[in-house]
Amino acid sequence: MGNRQGSNNILMRLTENKIEWRNMIANDCSRQVESTRFDSFAGRQTQAMGFCRQMGRPKLYLITLGLLFTLYVLYSFFPCDPGPRVVMVPRESTKYIYAPTNHSETRGKGANQLQAIPYDDQSPLIFVGGMPRSGTTLMRAMLDAHPDIRCGEETRVIPRILGIRMQWSRSPLEKKRLDEAGVTDQVIDSAVKAFILEIIAKHGEAAPHLCNKDPFTLKSTFYLTRLFPNAKFILMIRDGRAVVHSIITRQVTISGFDLKSYRASLAKWNNALEVMYSQCLRVGQSKCLPVYYEQLTLHPKEWMVRILKFLDIPWNESVLHHEQFIDKPGGIAISKVEKSTGQVIKPVNSAALSTWVGNIPIDVVKDMEHIAPMLRTLGYDPNANPPNYGQPDPAVADNTIHIKKNADFYRKREQELLHPEQQQQQQQQQQKPSESGEAGDSGRRR
Amino acid sequence: MGNRQGSNNILMRLTENKIEWRNMIANDCSRQVESTRFDSFAGRQTQAMGFCRQMGRPKLYLITLGLLFTLYVLYSFFPCDPGPRVVMVPRESTKYIYAPTNHSETRGKGANQLQAIPYDDQSPLIFVGGMPRSGTTLMRAMLDAHPDIRCGEETRVIPRILGIRMQWSRSPLEKKRLDEAGVTDQVIDSAVKAFILEIIAKHGEAAPHLCNKDPFTLKSTFYLTRLFPNAKFILMIRDGRAVVHSIITRQVTISGFDLKSYRASLAKWNNALEVMYSQCLRVGQSKCLPVYYEQLTLHPKEWMVRILKFLDIPWNESVLHHEQFIDKPGGIAISKVEKSTGQVIKPVNSAALSTWVGNIPIDVVKDMEHIAPMLRTLGYDPNANPPNYGQPDPAVADNTIHIKKNADFYRKREQELLHPEQQQQQQQQQQKPSESGEAGDSGRRR
Repeated sequence: MGNRQGSNNILMRLTENKIEWRNMIANDCSRQVESTRFDSFAGRQTQAMGFCRQMGRPKLYLITLGLLFTLYVLYSFFPCDPGPRVVMVPRESTKYIYAPTNHSETRGKGANQLQAIPYDDQSPLIFVGGMPRSGTTLMRAMLDAHPDIRCGEETRVIPRILGIRMQWSRSPLEKKRLDEAGVTDQVIDSAVKAFILEIIAKHGEAAPHLCNKDPFTLKSTFYLTRLFPNAKFILMIRDGRAVVHSIITRQVTISGFDLKSYRASLAKWNNALEVMYSQCLRVGQSKCLPVYYEQLTLHPKEWMVRILKFLDIPWNESVLHHEQFIDKPGGIAISKVEKSTGQVIKPVNSAALSTWVGNIPIDVVKDMEHIAPMLRTLGYDPNANPPNYGQPDPAVADNTIHIKKNADFYRKREQELLHPEQQQQQQQQQQKPSESGEAGDSGRRR
Repeated sequence: MGNRQGSNNILMRLTENKIEWRNMIANDCSRQVESTRFDSFAGRQTQAMGFCRQMGRPKLYLITLGLLFTLYVLYSFFPCDPGPRVVMVPRESTKYIYAPTNHSETRGKGANQLQAIPYDDQSPLIFVGGMPRSGTTLMRAMLDAHPDIRCGEETRVIPRILGIRMQWSRSPLEKKRLDEAGVTDQVIDSAVKAFILEIIAKHGEAAPHLCNKDPFTLKSTFYLTRLFPNAKFILMIRDGRAVVHSIITRQVTISGFDLKSYRASLAKWNNALEVMYSQCLRVGQSKCLPVYYEQLTLHPKEWMVRILKFLDIPWNESVLHHEQFIDKPGGIAISKVEKSTGQVIKPVNSAALSTWVGNIPIDVVKDMEHIAPMLRTLGYDPNANPPNYGQPDPAVADNTIHIKKNADFYRKREQELLHPEQQQQQQQQQQKPSESGEAGDSGRRR
């Protein structure tokens, strides 16, 4: 109520003083207009006079100037990028991926409460790679367990676009044709970059640190550092004998690999590792970290500390318990068709390190040094069967015993994740039909 | 000077009145603060009191309120999109291609005077396609001659990424693997879209209307309308007998085409046209315009008016004189390795319409109706050799005579554009060495 009286007071005083103000300001204003050079254009002078009359007293005039200045300062602080100097109206907005800010809050308030995470070629992307069966899935699962990182499943299309891109630049005739068409290396790179970014950003949940795991992308480490200058690379390295044994016994089809020959496959492993390792060394240790699978499984804490430090991401205990986040929302997305899914559901263990011993033909074992010289380069003794990989941390030793004891449980869990339909059918046969639907779906994301 | 005196006056009056103002406003202000509900929080009350004292007289208070309102109105008119509600700081800026605002002005002022043209999947892209040797290059050259349109050379990579994308979705096993990895159709589309956009936008000069000509992209017309909802398509159609005759005599390698057999090639033409024509009909006449090569060359003005109307682009006379803009800056970029470059340097003419007559084996001619049923579907009489394509406009008839008379000139011009090195060498042999360098380079872009 007091407020209103005050306002009325002010209004009355304003009205009383209006005419007086006008008379007082007239002199100042006409003088000013004369002195100011408005292109000596008559129409503009008249405008300026009108402006002055409307202004009232000089005090107000000054204050208005002050306020206009404040307005200007406010504008200049307003976070609105003016962009290049001559610019048409933008149509495409900045690219974002959307992550819920907080799960419990979000539900009540709808999509408005999503957190937008920008992504572009300057993003600190993480690329995990190496030969298949070298622990690339374990590595990405451990990273995926970190709340700020999302790797996700193998995209399959990223190594392919990289392969196609290499083809285009390898043939001189094709290179000439593309250059003639204005499709220079720079233009192709920008297209390949956009392609890769879209796939990485959108094939899984949003996270501040996006990561990609497609084993063979690490063959293009150098090229990728050109596309993404802030990317970092984790090259998984594992004893080639164990890798080839795993590829052959699990019949993992890799183009160029003869799944019947240890000798030929070891040579292929050698070539692939040569390319990946040299690229890793080429981009330097600030960008590429070689991680030995054996050391990661024997000393997970030591290595994860080192890896997160390398990635500049704060430590989080979750990375040591990845098995707890498998197939959970915001946790580790898995693919039912990836061969490694069956292993990655178990806690970190050292059960598989030396299973290859005794399974490689004698003539190949004898010739190991020549078939796979990269073994020695990487520090594996080609003549030791097995070499001494080291002693596991107590936690890992416990896990290994736990897994052996609970083999049945893990077999069942694998079935549940990889073949939920079969699992459901089995349950239907065991239980009443009315209960089965719920049981089969509980805790499942798809 | 008068200005200054006025300002001093105002300043003096302000200083004299300051203390008086404070006393006068005190009552109003304290009352106001009491009545206003500032969460009854002591700290805030103190702040508000301070604010009031600084305000001075109530008049000023009112005026400030008015100005704040003005400021608010100004802000609301300011073209600054606030974006989604909870948003992190953007890193990637809007995508632009840069075009000089004015050629003559630009040179003096540097890169700052570039005009930024935004591009995204909502851009009104133009796709020109059809079977090779059906006038696709002529069509894109005529569009390229328009100052607002840029097509440019065949990119070669766009039809390939489209082909690869089709492969991925065609194999059910691969489709399942990708879906399992979160690489759904939607994610792939977004990556393919980004790839295509980058290539189209960056492989040539900037223009408000971007256009792409890769003959076989029109096999994916329907898919492309899904990626780019505002895209329009121009399907070039030409008598299949003329197309195949041209492919065979010029030895244009197209995968799947047997360059020795008219019969097999006509069947291939038929299949390709069937796909492209049905896709064109499927997306509807608002998005896809079939253009008959014969009609375009006989009646260029009528057809270009129709085409620009279809594209919603204002008429420009340049499109009828494309030969004047070949290889000029801001004009028509050409590729030295595209087979059609030799023809497109000539003005529109009807010299090549019926050259196929008498060159097709008799048994194929007799069986034409069955080999290429699309001929009849498209309105060509399969039993007429040649069918009556119509009479050329006078201008076209003139051009055709002009070209025949000046065959030597055009042969030389073709040499100049396609083999500038040879041309230069010839000139060097004819002229003194000191003059040749300039002559060889004049008017060349690369």
